[in-house]
Amino acid sequence: MEQTTSYDLLNKIDSPEDLRKLSVEALPEVCNQLRNKIIDELSRNPGHFGSSLGVIELTVALHYVYQTPYDRIVWDVGHQAYGHKILTGRRDRFCTNRKLNGICPFPSPSESEYDTFTCGHASNSISAALGMAVAAARKGEDNRHVVAVIGDGSMSGGLAFEGLNNASSTPNNLLIILNDNNMAIDRSVGGMKQYLLNLHTSEGYNRLRNALSRKLYRWGILNDERRKSLIRFNNSLKSMLMQQQNIFEGLNIRYFGPVDGHDVTALTKVLKEIKDMKGPKLLHIHTRKGKGFKPAEEAATLWHAPGIFDKETGERIVSDTSGMPPLFQDVFGNTLLELARKNEKIVGVTPAMPSGCSMNIMMKEMPDRVFDVGIAEGHAVTFSGGMAKDGLLPFCNVYSSFMQRAYDNIIHDVAIQKLNVVLCLDRAGLVGEDGPTHHGAFDMAYLRPIPNLTIASPYDEHELRKLMYTAQLPDKGPFAIRYPRGRGVLTDWECPLEAVEVGKGRKLKDGNDLAVITIGPIGNKAAAAIASAEKKLGCSIAHYDLRFLKPLDEDLLHEVGQKFTRVLTIEDGVRNGGMGSAVLEFLCDHGYKPCVTRLGLPDAFVQHGSVNDLYAICGLDEKGIFSSITQIMNL
Amino acid sequence: MEQTTSYDLLNKIDSPEDLRKLSVEALPEVCNQLRNKIIDELSRNPGHFGSSLGVIELTVALHYVYQTPYDRIVWDVGHQAYGHKILTGRRDRFCTNRKLNGICPFPSPSESEYDTFTCGHASNSISAALGMAVAAARKGEDNRHVVAVIGDGSMSGGLAFEGLNNASSTPNNLLIILNDNNMAIDRSVGGMKQYLLNLHTSEGYNRLRNALSRKLYRWGILNDERRKSLIRFNNSLKSMLMQQQNIFEGLNIRYFGPVDGHDVTALTKVLKEIKDMKGPKLLHIHTRKGKGFKPAEEAATLWHAPGIFDKETGERIVSDTSGMPPLFQDVFGNTLLELARKNEKIVGVTPAMPSGCSMNIMMKEMPDRVFDVGIAEGHAVTFSGGMAKDGLLPFCNVYSSFMQRAYDNIIHDVAIQKLNVVLCLDRAGLVGEDGPTHHGAFDMAYLRPIPNLTIASPYDEHELRKLMYTAQLPDKGPFAIRYPRGRGVLTDWECPLEAVEVGKGRKLKDGNDLAVITIGPIGNKAAAAIASAEKKLGCSIAHYDLRFLKPLDEDLLHEVGQKFTRVLTIEDGVRNGGMGSAVLEFLCDHGYKPCVTRLGLPDAFVQHGSVNDLYAICGLDEKGIFSSITQIMNL
Repeated sequence: MEQTTSYDLLNKIDSPEDLRKLSVEALPEVCNQLRNKIIDELSRNPGHFGSSLGVIELTVALHYVYQTPYDRIVWDVGHQAYGHKILTGRRDRFCTNRKLNGICPFPSPSESEYDTFTCGHASNSISAALGMAVAAARKGEDNRHVVAVIGDGSMSGGLAFEGLNNASSTPNNLLIILNDNNMAIDRSVGGMKQYLLNLHTSEGYNRLRNALSRKLYRWGILNDERRKSLIRFNNSLKSMLMQQQNIFEGLNIRYFGPVDGHDVTALTKVLKEIKDMKGPKLLHIHTRKGKGFKPAEEAATLWHAPGIFDKETGERIVSDTSGMPPLFQDVFGNTLLELARKNEKIVGVTPAMPSGCSMNIMMKEMPDRVFDVGIAEGHAVTFSGGMAKDGLLPFCNVYSSFMQRAYDNIIHDVAIQKLNVVLCLDRAGLVGEDGPTHHGAFDMAYLRPIPNLTIASPYDEHELRKLMYTAQLPDKGPFAIRYPRGRGVLTDWECPLEAVEVGKGRKLKDGNDLAVITIGPIGNKAAAAIASAEKKLGCSIAHYDLRFLKPLDEDLLHEVGQKFTRVLTIEDGVRNGGMGSAVLEFLCDHGYKPCVTRLGLPDAFVQHGSVNDLYAICGLDEKGIFSSITQIMNL
Repeated sequence: MEQTTSYDLLNKIDSPEDLRKLSVEALPEVCNQLRNKIIDELSRNPGHFGSSLGVIELTVALHYVYQTPYDRIVWDVGHQAYGHKILTGRRDRFCTNRKLNGICPFPSPSESEYDTFTCGHASNSISAALGMAVAAARKGEDNRHVVAVIGDGSMSGGLAFEGLNNASSTPNNLLIILNDNNMAIDRSVGGMKQYLLNLHTSEGYNRLRNALSRKLYRWGILNDERRKSLIRFNNSLKSMLMQQQNIFEGLNIRYFGPVDGHDVTALTKVLKEIKDMKGPKLLHIHTRKGKGFKPAEEAATLWHAPGIFDKETGERIVSDTSGMPPLFQDVFGNTLLELARKNEKIVGVTPAMPSGCSMNIMMKEMPDRVFDVGIAEGHAVTFSGGMAKDGLLPFCNVYSSFMQRAYDNIIHDVAIQKLNVVLCLDRAGLVGEDGPTHHGAFDMAYLRPIPNLTIASPYDEHELRKLMYTAQLPDKGPFAIRYPRGRGVLTDWECPLEAVEVGKGRKLKDGNDLAVITIGPIGNKAAAAIASAEKKLGCSIAHYDLRFLKPLDEDLLHEVGQKFTRVLTIEDGVRNGGMGSAVLEFLCDHGYKPCVTRLGLPDAFVQHGSVNDLYAICGLDEKGIFSSITQIMNL
């Protein structure tokens, strides 16, 4: 754990232009300082750790070889872009990373011209970069280079394949860098991962082949035109270079690699060599997540986003959580295992998030009943549909914002057939520091129009357990349960498993002057605000936990409609088309005309910051809710 | 065009059980009769033609070799399943195909136990079939076979790749049949298509290799265990079988083929041979769309769904449409070209639907400015985002129900960055005979929650042209235009191109007793119903064409709120969360309390039938709207 603490080189790099003034011999030391800077900062200010350490050398080499920002680097996901941020003018602001009004967690075009495209959801880089490469060609900017950097984990996403499949269709000079560390957040899975592993075995052979190809190119024997026609006629190329057929070359994308992604000099060299070759290319590099920080190299999943730590000892500084309510994720994971022990139809499906959603708890005891399908949300849902069609009962857990990728799969492959799939939407509502790409803001609005779907959200951990129990009872059909990231409110979360009636909410508290209707755990904040308001304003407020967005509890809503002239709905999703909108539709359809105030997320992408700060900004903390109640009562 | 008209064999096949009683020598004649039956029926009752003719032999071979329905056949898309329907007990009902209350256009589990999974949207078969195969393995039904039949066109979809990538991860006996005819509806595109073409070149070699492999297997030299471990260690297998590396085998899926998909005897033989091999397998067959009907073989796109025709002469019977309003599609296609001639930033993007959405009009004149990306809706949108980021202005045309597959791409890759992408949602509203998978029912509800997005729907062809013109003006941001399948209402559609103000609707007609708010071409039916109602009921009705679902026309809605106690909203999308819901939210937020009646599609999947019949069933034809107005006026 020896680290120099000198940043003499790094401190002179205010933009990649400064980096490019250095000699290539200086680059290893730049990498060293960049790595130390990230370790140092992240030890105090938590963030995504392992990914960025893994691409230090690549980041330096890319900005050294390419004329950024004129040349475009498109990062897939943004976990890995801290080095990029530091080198592109954000060194001194890096300490504000992920904080409210600080720099964004991922590359963000609104923050810097070096950040070329929205990052956050995996697998979009090839398609976006291809678009940029085609735009450059169309606009006659033929000297512009476009580079997509994608991890092997992201490569399992269908969107990445769609991009690959189209990369050779139109004239472009796209370079895809496949950053292969055999990891998403958890270990990579699937045939592609196995395939990439197999490429190792022919590393020496490939190296020879690539070297030969580059030489022929430099000598003018293999010029662009000839190479293109050669690629088209696979067989000729094969006989010429004794080339083994390769998946990427099968798709007409020139393949180079694998090369060591931690040798910055070699990387710089190979990038320079292939830079001006025409046509789509893929450079396969091997890196190690957490490279240069031993604890992270040894436990990459843990160190994906480790929180703060002691950079000298490598010890993670974990705050004492005894006596605190559990994470919703752990309640989910433990309850799933508990249910699966009793109901052998239950299987678990996760797209590359076994540790994130705590399905690893079930995985440990029942490895053959949990399917990590890799980053492939659409497949996760359709595959669940197939299993449900033949009698299994999948709990398919996908983060709320990622479920946007499986929207058609829910409609087409689950809902039409009324299949018994339990859709578990983790990280519903605001998620905090990961920002706009990751907030689970839209799920209630986008799920509600789907016929045959039950949609529920638990008020607390007990309710989550009861909803999960209910969902796995026979013939419940497609059943969505959405719950937030982070801690619940109950320390004694292990209540008995019992059913709730589908489509029935709860009256938490009676009252006369105002009906508050909430869904999900935001109800707890509402309850606190209601208590304050009753005390301070001297009014009487009823509180209903709707629990089911669909089907609606008609009895509950008739009661509200008949009894109240003032209604306040509160949800942690967008107001447009959400729960409040559903309540409004019902009341209107049945001729009730109370004054309805709807609280929820605004019609705008909410930025990053702590969950508490963000909810406060949206008027959805206790104070904001209290203030809304005050306004309503003063009308 | 000689055809026997005898159906003596076919008429004895009431289920695949009957087929399996025949000798293998009888199968060619079964194919012959099945082909004639389909030609005969479709000449009178229009439907999807070429695809089903192309898989006659495969269909017969599959049901002959596999114990359906115990064994599962999962068809990708359903265009190709007419032979399957006829062989599985629906011969005599086949004349009701696609008609209201008749048999479904695609395989549908609600119709038959032989139809294993929802078909309609391409590329889902591998994931669904893998789910079934895994379910069979988990439930100890090891003797159950699961077969996915997928076209090369569908293979470009990311979901298919996600399925492939996962196929080797868990124990299963999945067989994937890759039906390669080099076509989606239009010609296939992309690297994968090129790759499959290249496999031809090594056909003889592959045949040898496969034969050898099967022999070794039969002789017990290459047993399942050994084969599996061999596949894992690619290199060994390679040296043993001198195997060329293949994309599918790279993904650990055993590859067989390519074989002639029109030789039923050979197909039967190869299916029998590979049937009991363990582990995931892919059989690559070559077929011809429209096989056995010359005009269809020669013009496959035209004969994808040709309408009625003379089966003797092969002439398509096209009804006289002179004097009729144009198709919205043709107005779109011609207007796009017109705009692209003047604005060189404009490019077109279509996921495999250049003829369906009439983008082929622009393609013909400007082939380098239109990108057919294959069946890959997500990529279509993200690729458009990339092009927009670097200054182009993509018109990305995706059918409304298929846009469900690009939901996250719209949010993540377009809306967050406010990119100038024009999202053209063709076939919005009910589409008719293609049924529940294809209706554009949800788009307004799922698009409305997305921040930064403009959403519009034209009242008629002139409005479509104006909206398209407006959308390509500078800095309009993400702009969605939804319009229906089929004919408009104006014969003189070529109005001058002029801008409309974004977020401004139109008052089509003043009135006092009721405000009717419509969006899109359903407004024309409403106008007719309003005219009748005013005449018959003696009331005065105002009609507003909202035009923009987002941003809402606040002036218009304030006028409605201030003036009217009765409001009727009418839309061709789902009521839950749709336009009526948006109007209701606005009125409520601003303290207006008129009685609002919302007409729209129900919270259920609407079945298949003619567009007119279906709208009538939903109460959305002129008569239904009139009847709603009557009810409101009688309150």
